[in-house]
This record gives sequence, structure tokens and C-alpha cells, in this order.
Amino acid sequence: MRYEEFMIEGRNAVIEAFRAGKPIDKLFILDGAQDGPIQTIKREAKKHETMIKFVTKERLDQLSETGKHQGVIAYMAAYEYADVEDILAAARDKNEPPFIILLDNIEDPHNLGAIIRTANLAGAHGVIIPKNRAAGLTAAVARTSAGALNYTPVARVTNLGKTMEDLKKQGMWFVCADMDGTVMYQLDLKGPIGLVIGSEGDGVGRLVKEKCDFVASIPMKGDIDSLNASVAAGVLAYEIVRQRMM
Amino acid sequence: MRYEEFMIEGRNAVIEAFRAGKPIDKLFILDGAQDGPIQTIKREAKKHETMIKFVTKERLDQLSETGKHQGVIAYMAAYEYADVEDILAAARDKNEPPFIILLDNIEDPHNLGAIIRTANLAGAHGVIIPKNRAAGLTAAVARTSAGALNYTPVARVTNLGKTMEDLKKQGMWFVCADMDGTVMYQLDLKGPIGLVIGSEGDGVGRLVKEKCDFVASIPMKGDIDSLNASVAAGVLAYEIVRQRMM
Repeated sequence: MRYEEFMIEGRNAVIEAFRAGKPIDKLFILDGAQDGPIQTIKREAKKHETMIKFVTKERLDQLSETGKHQGVIAYMAAYEYADVEDILAAARDKNEPPFIILLDNIEDPHNLGAIIRTANLAGAHGVIIPKNRAAGLTAAVARTSAGALNYTPVARVTNLGKTMEDLKKQGMWFVCADMDGTVMYQLDLKGPIGLVIGSEGDGVGRLVKEKCDFVASIPMKGDIDSLNASVAAGVLAYEIVRQRMM
Repeated sequence: MRYEEFMIEGRNAVIEAFRAGKPIDKLFILDGAQDGPIQTIKREAKKHETMIKFVTKERLDQLSETGKHQGVIAYMAAYEYADVEDILAAARDKNEPPFIILLDNIEDPHNLGAIIRTANLAGAHGVIIPKNRAAGLTAAVARTSAGALNYTPVARVTNLGKTMEDLKKQGMWFVCADMDGTVMYQLDLKGPIGLVIGSEGDGVGRLVKEKCDFVASIPMKGDIDSLNASVAAGVLAYEIVRQRMM
């Protein structure tokens, strides 16, 4: 596994980790703490768009491995995110048109893990996730990816729409999954393609959707609203596989 | 919701529930209890293939709502399982050839819930699960089905192979999902069809697989072993949808 999770405890250690650019996923801060170093940590967290949870001293004591948390514990993913360029290089190495899965606001780590697993088996060259409001590469994601995290590069970008713009300049097309789209069987999904999957509740965000060349929908014949996000990603990814195999 | 979970506490209440044929999902019995009524309950549980967990008195005290568990607590699904005949009737009512998803040894309630959700949206007329060694319709399943349990009938049968034999006599075909099969795009999956999905670890059991007319595989282009079971079910179910729409 290319992934491990480390805990960092104490004010200076956490500040140093941020300044060294370490990929901090989660931050637990003592509720009500207001002193200088804590303010610095909050600023760094904001800058890096790290999720903060404010918790009780009892909770911190429980999480702590050293007993010296000084009101702050951070979780760092030892997994290194890839660059978008690494994903394009993987496609070039295989002599295939790029196939990338982009996730807008997938917050459930089990869905994220299952989608990385699907990306690997459907032959996608990588997965792109946004920095804020989304699940990062936590231990739960690594577990549900069933090992796929070791093979399929995952890049994390600040602005998904901006990344899509850049990739369009390099010849990629983007298809968003949404219920009001064209039935996926009627679209041409061959060629260099990015598949954009949104969250179950809200779908793909407006700004991201505006950047999509097509909107694809999965035929829905039932009574309820939507498929599980990882199932929807799988069904759409395999429609791309099917069309590429034709 | 057509589903609710009830707790039944105390020896007589649990024995009565079994004798009245109530759908008991789970049974907690005080570890080491050996007296007459407890033996009766164990016999009933065996007869109905109910899962028993032997637990400490502390655990039972914790679960108990009345404080009078007498060493036994049962969980009853208020959800009523459908009959296989109900599923066939649903297909007839819609004037469609039957499309049924059969699950062999799916033990994870989240996968079961997600598959029922997929069954609903892919227009399957019902889901068939085996009685033993598989997840039943628990609260977690109802939750992850996102409401689909209210619409899509789920039947529970003692012997999946025997049920398949019976359905074959009524003109149904069965396709098993397995990695050593024919690529799904090359199979004719139209007509009255049962799609059999196995567990992630073990796939479809040998006896069930022998009853299948085809074995379908999802093209695997990656490095790891298999898709998540609910994703695989979704991809295959939608290949059936696609072929039916042609």
C-alpha cells in the first residue's frame, strides 16, 4: 500500500506539518481554544482547506497516542496525491486517449473508495477530486478501494472547473452525470474523456456543470430518485468502456 | 416505509413470535444459558435459520428497552418478505418479461441495500435472497436502499438453486456474474432473465453456478481483483437495461 495515516499531536508539530506542505486530512482542535498558536493553526487549515472538528478535551485525550496533544491533533495521509499531469502521462504510456473520473462533492469515503476501485478496473487513468467539501484519501477510502489506490493516481485540485478548462485546451471532452441529460447510450463517449460524478443529494455543481460538453443520464425506470453514487459512476464508466471496445 | 424493526424481549414473547411465523432477523441470547425455554428458542431459531449471537448480560442490559429481557432479545423485521410469485406477478402487471436479481451470499447490508436500490431503478421486478448465510432485510439495508424497499419486492428462499429450477420451468434464463465468463456485451440478455450476483470474496457458489445458462463477465482492465459487489450488480443490470432498450 502506498497509503498510511499518521497522527500528529501538539501545536508546533502541527504548524510545522502545515508549513512543510504535508497532506493533512483532518484536524481536531479543542473547542474554545483561542490562543496564538491555535489561531495560526486555524489560519493554516483555512489556507489548505483542511476540515476542522472542534471537540472536547475528553475526545482529544481519547484520540491521543502520546498524551501531549496540547489541544490539537492532526491526521496526515502518507498517501501522496498525484498531479493531473501524472494522469495524462499514464494515458500516454498506454497509448490510450485519456479517461479520467472527476468527483464533485463526493463526501462519503466508502463511495470515494468504491469509485477509485471502479476507475482502476474500468481502465480510467486517474481520478481527480476537489480540495474542499469532499472526502480526502483517508484510511476508510484506502480500505474500500480494495488496493486500487496503489495503482490508480488520484489528484486533488483547488478548482475543479479551472482544471477542466485546462484539460479542454489539451483536447479533452467532459461529460457530466445528471438526471436531465441525454440517455448515455445515445452519446458518443469515445475519445479523450472526463466523466464528472456529483454527490447523491446535489448532483454536479452548477459551475462545474457549465463546463461540461455533454450531460449524460442513466435510464431510470423505478420509483426512487437516484442510484448510489458509486453505482452510478460504475454504470457510466462501463458505458465508456463498452463504447471504447466497439 | 413498509419497513420497521421491532425488538421483542423475554422468553415467552420470543417463542410466540417464532410460532406465529414472524420474520425474526437477529437473536441475542445470554451466553451459557441452557434452560428449557432457551433450548426451545434455539430450536425455533435453527428451524427458521435465524442468526443467533451469544452475548454477555451487560450487552443484553444495554440493548433492553424494558429491562426484562430474561436472557433473550429478538429483532423482528416488520418488513414482510414477498413471495417469488409476487415478483412474477409484478412483471405480468407491467407486461414485461421478468427481470429478477438473485443474490448468492451477499453478507454486507450496505451492498444488499444498494443492490435493491439499483434493482428498483433498473426496472427489475424483484430481488431474491437465500435464507442462510446472507444479510436479511435489516434497518441498515432499508436505509441504504434509499426507499427502494418500499417498491421492489424482496423474496427470501430456502434454496436458491431449487428456486432457479422452478423458474426455469416457467421459461426464465439465468446469467451468473463471474470473472471466467463471456464478456457481457457478447451475450443476449434480453427475454425473461435472472441475474445472479455472488459475494465479492467467493463469487457465485458452485451449485448455483451450475444452474446458470450463461456466465457473464464484466471486462476488467485494471490491476485489482474485482469490483464492489453492488457496483458489479449495477453494471450488469444496466447491460440488461441497454439490451432491452435496443
